[in-house]
Amino acid sequence: MLQPDSNSAPSINTGNVHAQFDQISAHWRPHVIATLNNQHVRVAKILGEFVWHNHADEDEMFYVVRGSMIIEFRDTTIELSEGDYCVVPRGVEHRPVAKTEAWIMLFEPATTINTGNVRTDLTILDL
Amino acid sequence: MLQPDSNSAPSINTGNVHAQFDQISAHWRPHVIATLNNQHVRVAKILGEFVWHNHADEDEMFYVVRGSMIIEFRDTTIELSEGDYCVVPRGVEHRPVAKTEAWIMLFEPATTINTGNVRTDLTILDL
Repeated sequence: MLQPDSNSAPSINTGNVHAQFDQISAHWRPHVIATLNNQHVRVAKILGEFVWHNHADEDEMFYVVRGSMIIEFRDTTIELSEGDYCVVPRGVEHRPVAKTEAWIMLFEPATTINTGNVRTDLTILDL
Repeated sequence: MLQPDSNSAPSINTGNVHAQFDQISAHWRPHVIATLNNQHVRVAKILGEFVWHNHADEDEMFYVVRGSMIIEFRDTTIELSEGDYCVVPRGVEHRPVAKTEAWIMLFEPATTINTGNVRTDLTILDL
């Protein structure tokens, strides 16, 4: 991939998703790769069980880049494999789980806190 | 991928990006796969040269799922291969070009018109 000229204005945010994943070692720690229209595109490596939570005011989209995961809801469970996506509507309690490591992209408002309405050791407030 | 139970409420939008591409034959005709937070996630197959345009009020993210493309700007050109992304800031003139067919995802406000400030045969107002 060619990088834009240094004199290009305004600067253009461009990169490679796989290269971004290569920078990540910790699980459940989203990394912001793009900010646009007050939204974030985040990437994360996940493994194990996350916490039950909801986002009162934010819809959240999961997209699986590598591996597989499940999203547990109170009344159903959705399995996602590579290339699958799922939109969790605001206010809906959910718990992401990955039995083996998965690489995911997230699309959500920049205000979104990863653990939503709960605070645990997994909560990250300083993305 | 398991589908959610039919009695799940509210309904959960889930699907597979590659399956969505399999539904597409026309080039430069985005297909909305998700609506969330007043934003769209769209997929499109592209081939050839698009039109120069800008989006006055909308930032637009390109993400290459398969193949490669370039985004021409007035002062530079960015090449994108599989897994690459690029955020085009609002107001910045650009022209997407694909020398061979590419499959892309777009993240942008639901209000975004594909040809931005210009109207051509490629303009789609009824996404």
